[in-house]
Amino acid sequence: MGHASIVAMAPQVTDSLAFLLSKLGQVASERFAVHLAPLGLRPRHCAVLQLLAGAPLGQLALAKTISVAPSVVVDMLDELEALGAVRRVRDTADRRRQVVEITDKGRELGRSAALAAAQVDAELLGALEPGREGELRKTLTAAAGTLGLLPPR
Amino acid sequence: MGHASIVAMAPQVTDSLAFLLSKLGQVASERFAVHLAPLGLRPRHCAVLQLLAGAPLGQLALAKTISVAPSVVVDMLDELEALGAVRRVRDTADRRRQVVEITDKGRELGRSAALAAAQVDAELLGALEPGREGELRKTLTAAAGTLGLLPPR
Repeated sequence: MGHASIVAMAPQVTDSLAFLLSKLGQVASERFAVHLAPLGLRPRHCAVLQLLAGAPLGQLALAKTISVAPSVVVDMLDELEALGAVRRVRDTADRRRQVVEITDKGRELGRSAALAAAQVDAELLGALEPGREGELRKTLTAAAGTLGLLPPR
Repeated sequence: MGHASIVAMAPQVTDSLAFLLSKLGQVASERFAVHLAPLGLRPRHCAVLQLLAGAPLGQLALAKTISVAPSVVVDMLDELEALGAVRRVRDTADRRRQVVEITDKGRELGRSAALAAAQVDAELLGALEPGREGELRKTLTAAAGTLGLLPPR
């Protein structure tokens, strides 16, 4: 057994999930951004649209749910409002309170974003054995859920 | 079946690998950076140290192998040289050519980086079912390999 084999058997940074996820995450995020750009959307808008598709939410509740600073959520909502995807309205239960609701255009954009994500998935998975995808998705979802990266269902 | 269930069954951005990998990648990369900081290393240095642990390389070959612009490789090598991890030397085969070789300090740093990566993996996987890790690593390695994100073994 030569020196090269011994080196290959030592723990390698590029075998770690830390390295693999960093690299794949960067590529996934760049490609997703490219697919979303024609819609005027950015990746970070997608969780917001998805959440609001369920029910209107106040800005603070929204910030809390997606674990983002309130000031960042305000920027994101400004961007989505400029696209006609959301609107800020008075809460029907408490007229002093403002909530954010999704528009029909917003629902349409949410569906287009899901299709864009599916296209990126196909690119990323193109060369994997078929059948591995479900297991991968399940494992990554479990990891992301544990780390608090997913909005509640 | 209520409205909420129908929404949950539609394809969702947060179910996509594009979204999951982006989010997990960001967390993995941030945590890895935190673990590497005390060593003076950044995540992008790790593939370089790993490659040079195999054999000395010219700057251009290095840039090509890790798919990074030559100017970026020069910066990375400057940083690693300042740490005493690599040195630029004359190629013994062709004295006009310069190659980069790893130092003992560099090998030591490479080993510490691998340990740091293993620690991040443990954090990311802490809550996953044991046994899933091997399959996940295999699938991500295949995907990263196909996308040309891994240095050759």
